[in-house]
Amino acid sequence: MTAPIDPAAIVCPVPSDDRERVTLAHGAGAGASARLFETLLWPRLGNAALAPRHDGAILAAGDAQLAFTTDGFVVSPLVFPGGTIGSLAVHGTLNDLAMCGARPLALSCALVIEEGLPMATLERVIDSLAAAAREAGVPVATGDTKVVERGKGDGLFVTTTGVGVVEGGVALRPDRVRAGDAILVSGSIGRHGAAILSVREGIDFESDIVSDSAWLGPLVAALLEAVPDAHCLRDPTRGGVGAALHEIARGAALEVEIDDGPIPIDAPVRAACELLGLDPLFLACEGRCLAFVAERDADRALAALRAHPLGRDAARIGRVLEGPARVCVRTRTGARRLLVLPAGDPLPRIC
Amino acid sequence: MTAPIDPAAIVCPVPSDDRERVTLAHGAGAGASARLFETLLWPRLGNAALAPRHDGAILAAGDAQLAFTTDGFVVSPLVFPGGTIGSLAVHGTLNDLAMCGARPLALSCALVIEEGLPMATLERVIDSLAAAAREAGVPVATGDTKVVERGKGDGLFVTTTGVGVVEGGVALRPDRVRAGDAILVSGSIGRHGAAILSVREGIDFESDIVSDSAWLGPLVAALLEAVPDAHCLRDPTRGGVGAALHEIARGAALEVEIDDGPIPIDAPVRAACELLGLDPLFLACEGRCLAFVAERDADRALAALRAHPLGRDAARIGRVLEGPARVCVRTRTGARRLLVLPAGDPLPRIC
Repeated sequence: MTAPIDPAAIVCPVPSDDRERVTLAHGAGAGASARLFETLLWPRLGNAALAPRHDGAILAAGDAQLAFTTDGFVVSPLVFPGGTIGSLAVHGTLNDLAMCGARPLALSCALVIEEGLPMATLERVIDSLAAAAREAGVPVATGDTKVVERGKGDGLFVTTTGVGVVEGGVALRPDRVRAGDAILVSGSIGRHGAAILSVREGIDFESDIVSDSAWLGPLVAALLEAVPDAHCLRDPTRGGVGAALHEIARGAALEVEIDDGPIPIDAPVRAACELLGLDPLFLACEGRCLAFVAERDADRALAALRAHPLGRDAARIGRVLEGPARVCVRTRTGARRLLVLPAGDPLPRIC
Repeated sequence: MTAPIDPAAIVCPVPSDDRERVTLAHGAGAGASARLFETLLWPRLGNAALAPRHDGAILAAGDAQLAFTTDGFVVSPLVFPGGTIGSLAVHGTLNDLAMCGARPLALSCALVIEEGLPMATLERVIDSLAAAAREAGVPVATGDTKVVERGKGDGLFVTTTGVGVVEGGVALRPDRVRAGDAILVSGSIGRHGAAILSVREGIDFESDIVSDSAWLGPLVAALLEAVPDAHCLRDPTRGGVGAALHEIARGAALEVEIDDGPIPIDAPVRAACELLGLDPLFLACEGRCLAFVAERDADRALAALRAHPLGRDAARIGRVLEGPARVCVRTRTGARRLLVLPAGDPLPRIC
């Protein structure tokens, strides 16, 4: 039985001034952010293309099915272990296209630069953006540059938009998820969030944590070749695996259950989370994907992921159940607990 | 004879710290901004799609020709006479599609919000964004919201990206401009820039100056129906008619000559410019277009523009000549002067 979706049931209470002014929590990719979408943006902008609330929209153009997706990047610092805001802006948007099963056609890139940004920093970021686009074989076909006064920005914000072509037969959407589906993750979780945190807080962990930021196109292509009927993919970026599972549960109007044991987490990430009291389930990944596939396809999907370098730590982490739109964690002892979305944002500006 | 393009010949000297750090001038849409593109962005990101340096890129997808364009909006204030950053972000990007001769398919919208923005302001901006998109019949198909800490932004930045379909036979590009082409403008110039200036500086002009911000799709459709072989269109936004003419002159590698007399300028805009020592040729428009058409099509094009409410003040303002890539103004006495691009930005954050 599926109950109606009540966001209030799965997130913490609304902070008091949260209705009058925008707070950092509105950018968290989870509770308050979802509320901003539901109460302010959706009523004004809602339309059929926006309705599936997926990482990208699907549009028809002539005989082509297009995928179309955008993301603003405000990560701080601009340069971090494993990437820069430039490579992240390419990976993030290209991965959103990949989650739609689309072959990328082109990227656009709009820069908002704060006056005084060292030209050397801009060069480094654009070098890394260009290298990431080149690696994926995708042209940055159009762009824009704006400059704001000192103190009115924070170095550099980058918005990338991607357009791609969905090849025939692929249909990856939350509403295709079915009770009984298996849930896979393509690799260890939370490395991007932990990497940003480690540089931002100046924390020295036993070993360096490097962001997992990567282009998932080839990994997704391998998965879709093995399992063309995959139901839904999602890259667990802002808000991590926890927020992504909540979004899918709501989009599918089904219950998502994950197991506490098999989720791959690298030891330094686990140590960082323990030190800082963070749940790795809510730490951003930028080079991982969740895959929802029919139970009969699960082993084939897992094998396809593991055969690719980006997916060698892939694991089966849970299943979809008939039930209300919520996320539960089954512990090793068999007990179940609700996975509650944090109301605030423990890690603002992670992407 | 066409000389090689030497940007140094048509802009003022480079300010001294301009090579070490990003300055406001790099956002001006003219001299330093062009230099940033030429020296930093183009060498790293250059590709065939970006090469025409038009308002948008043209991509092939199946049997469809797509236009793809993006713009970041940082206008201050967020609400101004005649619009908001939301309506401006829709008009600006849809107009760039129109300049490619494309029918819009969809918009994306990425918000970067500063913590503390009053929810009422956000609502007003999104209302106005939604109304502009609805008027044009274009869905906002996908989007993103990020929040940055207080003092790390300036209320709200909006990046919109548009994807559209170029209908068969239309080819609007700077490199299609020919010596002998007539240059038309669709209406009075500089109203957007003057409107922003008037509220920002708190100046009371004899009458209110309202931004010309508007969607040009229907006007362009009427023009292309009358003159399907129009060579190039350009909306003279940041940097105004002056910067737009320079860009076309460089893209076409030809000389552009405009006449001092016939350029339509509303009296309050002219008065504001005289008061403030600004040249209306460099004031932004957000609901005007320049059209380059063959001489034999000029009267038909002008009549088509004038028959539409947005083009009733359309005028023929100049011509394209064999000659170096530069812009000249022919005064009423027949003398000619070079139109030099300002090195700085007299009006930062105009869009």
